[in-house]
Amino acid sequence: MTTTGTDSGGRGRHPLAAVEFEAAALIDRPGPGRPAAPQARPGARRLVAALAAGGVAVRVAVPAGAGADDLAADLMAAGIPLEHVSFAGADRERSPSDHTLLVTADDRPVHRGVLDALTTRVGAFRAAAGLTGALDAVATGEATQHHRRLTKPPGSLGRLETVGVQLAGIASAMPPPLPRPAAVAVFAGDHGVHRQGVSPWPQEVTAQMVANFLGGGAAINVLARQAGAAVVVVDVGVAGELPDGPGLLARKVRAGTGDLAVGPAMSIGDARRALDVGAEVATTLVDGGARCLVTGDMGIANTTPSAALIAALTDRPAPAVTGRGTGIDDAMLERKTALVAAAASRAGHLHGDDALAILAEIGGLEHAALAGFVVGGAALHVPVVIDGVIAASALLVASRLVPGVERAVIAGHRSVEPGASAVLGSLGLDPIVDLGIRLGEGSGAALALPLLEAAARVLAEMATFDQVGVTEK
Amino acid sequence: MTTTGTDSGGRGRHPLAAVEFEAAALIDRPGPGRPAAPQARPGARRLVAALAAGGVAVRVAVPAGAGADDLAADLMAAGIPLEHVSFAGADRERSPSDHTLLVTADDRPVHRGVLDALTTRVGAFRAAAGLTGALDAVATGEATQHHRRLTKPPGSLGRLETVGVQLAGIASAMPPPLPRPAAVAVFAGDHGVHRQGVSPWPQEVTAQMVANFLGGGAAINVLARQAGAAVVVVDVGVAGELPDGPGLLARKVRAGTGDLAVGPAMSIGDARRALDVGAEVATTLVDGGARCLVTGDMGIANTTPSAALIAALTDRPAPAVTGRGTGIDDAMLERKTALVAAAASRAGHLHGDDALAILAEIGGLEHAALAGFVVGGAALHVPVVIDGVIAASALLVASRLVPGVERAVIAGHRSVEPGASAVLGSLGLDPIVDLGIRLGEGSGAALALPLLEAAARVLAEMATFDQVGVTEK
Repeated sequence: MTTTGTDSGGRGRHPLAAVEFEAAALIDRPGPGRPAAPQARPGARRLVAALAAGGVAVRVAVPAGAGADDLAADLMAAGIPLEHVSFAGADRERSPSDHTLLVTADDRPVHRGVLDALTTRVGAFRAAAGLTGALDAVATGEATQHHRRLTKPPGSLGRLETVGVQLAGIASAMPPPLPRPAAVAVFAGDHGVHRQGVSPWPQEVTAQMVANFLGGGAAINVLARQAGAAVVVVDVGVAGELPDGPGLLARKVRAGTGDLAVGPAMSIGDARRALDVGAEVATTLVDGGARCLVTGDMGIANTTPSAALIAALTDRPAPAVTGRGTGIDDAMLERKTALVAAAASRAGHLHGDDALAILAEIGGLEHAALAGFVVGGAALHVPVVIDGVIAASALLVASRLVPGVERAVIAGHRSVEPGASAVLGSLGLDPIVDLGIRLGEGSGAALALPLLEAAARVLAEMATFDQVGVTEK
Repeated sequence: MTTTGTDSGGRGRHPLAAVEFEAAALIDRPGPGRPAAPQARPGARRLVAALAAGGVAVRVAVPAGAGADDLAADLMAAGIPLEHVSFAGADRERSPSDHTLLVTADDRPVHRGVLDALTTRVGAFRAAAGLTGALDAVATGEATQHHRRLTKPPGSLGRLETVGVQLAGIASAMPPPLPRPAAVAVFAGDHGVHRQGVSPWPQEVTAQMVANFLGGGAAINVLARQAGAAVVVVDVGVAGELPDGPGLLARKVRAGTGDLAVGPAMSIGDARRALDVGAEVATTLVDGGARCLVTGDMGIANTTPSAALIAALTDRPAPAVTGRGTGIDDAMLERKTALVAAAASRAGHLHGDDALAILAEIGGLEHAALAGFVVGGAALHVPVVIDGVIAASALLVASRLVPGVERAVIAGHRSVEPGASAVLGSLGLDPIVDLGIRLGEGSGAALALPLLEAAARVLAEMATFDQVGVTEK
């Protein structure tokens, strides 16, 4: 069940037909005062692979006075996937168009510049969607091999080893850079379905908790501080007005959703705007120095749209994916489950497998923004650590809009909400922490950060058998 | 199956008949320039409870010119458990003896001074065993109540909440002190059973890995550095000579055990000495500033004595508690399992439920030292984080020698070794991290440290509903 076509809001037809790179944007070539062997510029391998996989024609300009064969050899030595690359003389007349992008070398990673150019054409979310792709096979291969040389029995660090390989593949680097500092984005929104009595907490608690986040007193503040991570709150859909203040990004798309029990929660346009908000926040945080993104959320009643999205997109029965959220009693759970079942069924009848339309019909504004945030992080080649059921349902939407985006994602923890495990299972994600947490805010994901860092440090800092003369078995 | 009697090496009959405290050693009383309400001195509540539970007569000297009733009221207000306390005039003639201890106030926590006094009488392990006891009910109650006032749904931080309560109970303080800096003690020993072909690694790897620890290149070095924890290596039984060097504590009891497949691994005296080594190392590290102890181990073939101890002490069949250790093939596993079954059976026939004798018969020197280390940490009121199956089997021994010592223990992770889970289940311990790790060295336990710290920080730093005006459900 994947969406296609330009109306889907996701990858669909790639917004570019062709990209032509100046060679220096992709590799540093050997020479006096330069590297002894050709080296890929940061992000170049993954970018070329992602473009090629999206059906984009990738051309590399051959520098004046050089040979295409030499250039091809250097690109290959740097691990640039050449299967879909063609060559063009640097001195020929270029004919850029809306569908062709010319990329020259600058100081930033090459994917960062391409993301900007694409964003001005098609918006932040579709731009990011067009740049996600497979992990860097060169880096994952190097990390896998390196693990076998470290002074420990092969495989004995378990999941820490696979996370390390994934971090290398995301960053296109071995050892992978430390995933710090991290930044937590808490996307806040309200929900019209609150009036159906699906939560014991009054709706104003959403805004009150935003104030608590900004004051530094909530669980996510404590846990992020410990991990050296920043916390930003993004108002993408809180019902009331919030006072301006440091740490708050005012990105309200609308003041809460409509009641998903009776009609669409939001318009397709609102959903698109929230997707863009999420992708833009990811870029803002990475430009500000974040090397790992953490999903946070706040919105009283938001486990209800989460369960509805999961039921609709995985075809699971509502009782299997609906939980007690912040702690509801049996009667409220029964009402919530029936409501989830009806909403998921309606969304399916109305919209088939159109994930964007389903998101608008029964999702939340923070869900849409979180989906954009995940895709934004993937396009920026930073790991995205997701929290509980709200983030999981958003990732599910993102993975339908942008298949494979979950490769850049690490499941921070296993929420006790049953819908979270349903998503993790369906996407093949194995959570890092499993401590019976069901708080939201990004709290479970923040707890995983030291373990991600450990996975990177092991690859960077441990001695090999050769180095210290330990006998292998 | 608990051991009793003075020959067991454990708690058995308490080494003291009576302890008489100067009142100022237990509480700070109100007065000019002093606290407004009576406050227990650090450790006093747990110490009095542990002594009383051990059948020791606890007396408090009534200061000259004061009344016993006022003193009793102040002690009660400070949470000192008075059920088994009697009072004595400060000016009466005291008759100290080998079995009565007089405790005056000094700058250290009161249990620390008592531990020293006891250690000179009966050795480090028996002294520590005599001071372990229940968690501080005042502190656990305060932590439980405080969790309900924090700005989060009750119980929503899951296991992090119960760990926070446990930390408060161990330290007798709410909020609990941060469990940092931690210190990892890697107890290293060799095993005569290695000659039976139970490991694919040559025995000299034990000493080689000790050198790796001292050089900072092993997994535990990387993970401890990240957590801000020190690593010390304790040679309690490595077969070869090790060069002196910083970070190595030379405490060799003997140069490796005898072959547990054919006879006792060590004498009862050796086991007692190793128990003392472990308890002494705990005291050394806490005196050096450690506020959390982490068990580490190194010893090629040491999963074999671990499995044998677990089989013998839990009456489980060898196949249920014997694993592949560092990664052995089916043939080797079959040989190892048969050997474990025979050794556990022999130990049971020879020694019944005498845990000290079973430890000597089929254990390892690092197992004995780790058991002493756990008991030492418990007596010092610091949390002890255990690693995998070697530490679990040592904890099992410790809990038979000193019932209830596991209350001060946190299971750092769930090793893939089946014996580890068997112990955790039998002692009711729920591990923090579950990432398929089977490396040893303390690596899994070190990964849990940031999560323990988070549990403490939540209680210390989060805002309450009242403080920030968030509406409760």
